[in-house]
Amino acid sequence: MTESTKTELPVTKCLPIIAWLKSYSRQDFNGDVFAGIITAILLVPQAIAYAVLAGLPPELGLYASILPPMVYAVLGTSRTLSVGPASIAAIMIASALGAPEIQALGDSVHSALILSAESGLILLLMALLRMGGLVNFISHPVLTGFTSGASLLIIASQIPQIAGLKSPECGLSFACYGRYVQGFNSVTLAMGLASIGLLILFGKLLPSLLKKMGLSLSVVTAISKCGPLLSVLLGTTVVSYFNLQANHHIAVIGQVPGGFPVLSFDFTGIERWQLLLPSAAFIALIAYVESVAIAKVTANLRGEKIVPNQELIALGAANLATAFSGGMPVAGGFSRTMVNFAAGARTQMAMLIAAGLLAIAVVFLTRWFETIPKAVLAAIILVAIIPLVRIKNIVHTWQYDRGDGLAELVTLLGVIVLGIEEGITLGILLTIARHLRKSSQPHIAVVGRIPGTEQFRNIKRHHVETWRHLLLLRIDESITFTNINYIEDFLAAELRRQPAIKHVVLIFTSVSDIDTTALEALENLNHTLQASGKTLNLSEAKGPIMDKLEKTDFIAQLKPGKVFFRNTDAVRELS
Amino acid sequence: MTESTKTELPVTKCLPIIAWLKSYSRQDFNGDVFAGIITAILLVPQAIAYAVLAGLPPELGLYASILPPMVYAVLGTSRTLSVGPASIAAIMIASALGAPEIQALGDSVHSALILSAESGLILLLMALLRMGGLVNFISHPVLTGFTSGASLLIIASQIPQIAGLKSPECGLSFACYGRYVQGFNSVTLAMGLASIGLLILFGKLLPSLLKKMGLSLSVVTAISKCGPLLSVLLGTTVVSYFNLQANHHIAVIGQVPGGFPVLSFDFTGIERWQLLLPSAAFIALIAYVESVAIAKVTANLRGEKIVPNQELIALGAANLATAFSGGMPVAGGFSRTMVNFAAGARTQMAMLIAAGLLAIAVVFLTRWFETIPKAVLAAIILVAIIPLVRIKNIVHTWQYDRGDGLAELVTLLGVIVLGIEEGITLGILLTIARHLRKSSQPHIAVVGRIPGTEQFRNIKRHHVETWRHLLLLRIDESITFTNINYIEDFLAAELRRQPAIKHVVLIFTSVSDIDTTALEALENLNHTLQASGKTLNLSEAKGPIMDKLEKTDFIAQLKPGKVFFRNTDAVRELS
Repeated sequence: MTESTKTELPVTKCLPIIAWLKSYSRQDFNGDVFAGIITAILLVPQAIAYAVLAGLPPELGLYASILPPMVYAVLGTSRTLSVGPASIAAIMIASALGAPEIQALGDSVHSALILSAESGLILLLMALLRMGGLVNFISHPVLTGFTSGASLLIIASQIPQIAGLKSPECGLSFACYGRYVQGFNSVTLAMGLASIGLLILFGKLLPSLLKKMGLSLSVVTAISKCGPLLSVLLGTTVVSYFNLQANHHIAVIGQVPGGFPVLSFDFTGIERWQLLLPSAAFIALIAYVESVAIAKVTANLRGEKIVPNQELIALGAANLATAFSGGMPVAGGFSRTMVNFAAGARTQMAMLIAAGLLAIAVVFLTRWFETIPKAVLAAIILVAIIPLVRIKNIVHTWQYDRGDGLAELVTLLGVIVLGIEEGITLGILLTIARHLRKSSQPHIAVVGRIPGTEQFRNIKRHHVETWRHLLLLRIDESITFTNINYIEDFLAAELRRQPAIKHVVLIFTSVSDIDTTALEALENLNHTLQASGKTLNLSEAKGPIMDKLEKTDFIAQLKPGKVFFRNTDAVRELS
Repeated sequence: MTESTKTELPVTKCLPIIAWLKSYSRQDFNGDVFAGIITAILLVPQAIAYAVLAGLPPELGLYASILPPMVYAVLGTSRTLSVGPASIAAIMIASALGAPEIQALGDSVHSALILSAESGLILLLMALLRMGGLVNFISHPVLTGFTSGASLLIIASQIPQIAGLKSPECGLSFACYGRYVQGFNSVTLAMGLASIGLLILFGKLLPSLLKKMGLSLSVVTAISKCGPLLSVLLGTTVVSYFNLQANHHIAVIGQVPGGFPVLSFDFTGIERWQLLLPSAAFIALIAYVESVAIAKVTANLRGEKIVPNQELIALGAANLATAFSGGMPVAGGFSRTMVNFAAGARTQMAMLIAAGLLAIAVVFLTRWFETIPKAVLAAIILVAIIPLVRIKNIVHTWQYDRGDGLAELVTLLGVIVLGIEEGITLGILLTIARHLRKSSQPHIAVVGRIPGTEQFRNIKRHHVETWRHLLLLRIDESITFTNINYIEDFLAAELRRQPAIKHVVLIFTSVSDIDTTALEALENLNHTLQASGKTLNLSEAKGPIMDKLEKTDFIAQLKPGKVFFRNTDAVRELS
């Protein structure tokens, strides 16, 4: 925002960490330490829960929480984004690993690492091709519909965990849930419901109570974010103390290997790479789009700037890092980023501290993780995910713009009925098709002059002067192959309606480009008009358009038609 | 154009034949009879040649020249389009039938009839879905590149026929032609070259000579179009007289069954239908796009109107008709349509007459077709197709618009290297991607006032007044999910450059829509500006935009920002 932006060096562009480290203060550090600790407290249970949600051993979530956020801290342009295991990415991983042809290959950990590596490579390739702008082609309604749908799938996948039902392992579809016939476990259900109660108490009720009691905001924030960890601690203690695992068949996450992950380079198996490639592409796309969307929310609040292409590099490198350190694919997490921001994080130092704490946990604490009950993890996921289901938003969107509302609904239903990747694809194709269709029907206005002014306005909406032999048409878009037919038809219909017209003036105020197809059509149009004794004229054409047309002999062909600088000139000469 | 257009009845819309039959005159008939005879003379050799080009028995071309043009005459909106076997469609049929999985099924006539039926059904389905506008998404450069590429493939496929080389039957690729090692036949080559000479003589040299001699234009036209028929007659006579078939192994088309085709309904074989579906879709698309493009050329010359959706119906029905009468898929033919038009055709009566003459030929003359030499047919195809190869056009397009030139080149190379369907797909995707990319980077201008006027123009191109605290931004496109990020970035950069700005005015002259994504972003933008003590204002917003915004509380949120009717009002109040 200040001078540093203007004199930005290339190295700062590639390594955004340098920009904030240069002016890093004691005050920044205080904020970051506190936020880092709070985020770490949330990250441990989330990392384990999302790994389990993805159908993977818990350590893949923990490993994904150490090296990837460190890499992002160095390369990313968001100062508060918490990169690591994320819920939507987790359900996409579960969907990819659950496909029959992937199941047939066995060893889902190996598949997960390949997914991480492929996502990372795809993101880096996108960066190389400068495809950061791809995010521009996913509209908010599609993204919201997708998030709602994926969240509903996650909720559906967690309910059996809380009720202690045995999954028949039939994949991620609603049709599957009818088959949960056996294994209801009342002790699991009780523990799940108790966890949900505890989470709501800490997340909602306690903070407002403490605020009323006059405690400082940072203390309230710190306490409110301890709910997940406390649930895990309590649940684990209860399971161990009453030996619920043996006595009541409570499902726990089981042994988690201690110590640092060994850097791994085992990415062999060309068939697996090929089979996983489409899923990896979708995970990469969604990881990027969701991360940028989340990063923008906090960046807007602070007036910071997210650079899309640099985000591709940072997220790509983070996913390669997770692959090499044995972790699941990573993305920006919505709830963690909001917690990090609310806890006062100033820079990515907070995430470096959180990652450091995770590393300590992985080295020293994994033996305590063994008896974490799955029902508690399911409760944590449920409470975190429910705010992402925004069904009512569809009505809101529909009221403003029906097409957008429909796209949101179709995406949501597509995700639930057809599948995650199919749903988002359907939504994107639908919105792009609609966009193309709209752009092929540009707004065109027959205009006249508001008496006594130089203003030319739509004859349908304003009281304006018009002239019997003169047709003034304002075309409100660039003229290209997609809309030239529509423009020709519009003009032809207008000439049939007003046979007395002798001069047609196309007002080019909004025309920023004329492509080859459009130029050929305009040349034909000019010939046709001349053949019936009429002239074609242009007015208010912009500089770049004139530069382009002057390379051709179109202007010469127009004669006696002309190019006018202002509409008033055209009226004076032709009326 | 006149009253009849205004009072058009629904039945005339569905059956365009009624429109011209009502006012059909003796003079029209004279023109049509002459044009019909000339077209029929060209049609007989072309029908046989294009069937052979498609790898089919000659009768499939002849049958496709009787019922389909009659159906089109009733339903089509072009008065001069000659529907029947067409060169580009023929090479696409050859490519579809040459695929290994189709070859494996055998009986290529059966496959060709299914292609006809499927193309017809697809065109009718497109009509039902009102997808006539699809033609808007194929730009002229892509179509020209495609036509050039497909024509080059046709030429490559005909050269061995003229040189009498034996085809190793390895499909339509340049790689294949290296394998022509055996069978060079000097008699065939001589006959091929003689035919080419004769065709050039009749097509080019003789007409200009006759014109100089003062013969009337219609006689010259009639004589010049007899070249193909004369080549066939001469070639056949020479082969029969010298018994070249037995003595010199000259390839001839062989026996052609006489009499009318039996109406057939044998479209069984679900697997064949499935395998041929993608090719049928491409043939339908190209048949439609090429036919409309050709129809438009002649319609523009006469001030007639082509109705895209009605063309879908007419071409769909014509393809169903060809399927049921045992013919190959049909489309509008470029050279025949031009001949028909030049020979003075006024209405589709000309094509009804031509179809009638073809029917007579099929009943009475097929036994004379047996010894037509293939080399003569190849010569006819070559001479007809060479003008469609427009390599130089790429340079021309490139000079005007580099992106369009590139698209034309890529499509041409794609057709030759990758295949016909792949080439056109590549071209279409490339141009649409470029169109989307462009629309995500709208033209935005910082404007100021031309002193003493109400005109606001780009500060970069004109001498204008500006004001220290006031930023006037004109956005030259509708604001949607594809371009809102670009607009935000543009504004942010401008505000960094001019920190003194207190009021931002977005000029909406060219904005015809604001979608949900854009509205949310504008709301965020307004909050961000307000947080830093600036206001956001709108100016010259159109009626429909205001209607839409007034359904939300965006206008209320703007306060103290406002919506101004004219830019001058904004300047008076804010400067």
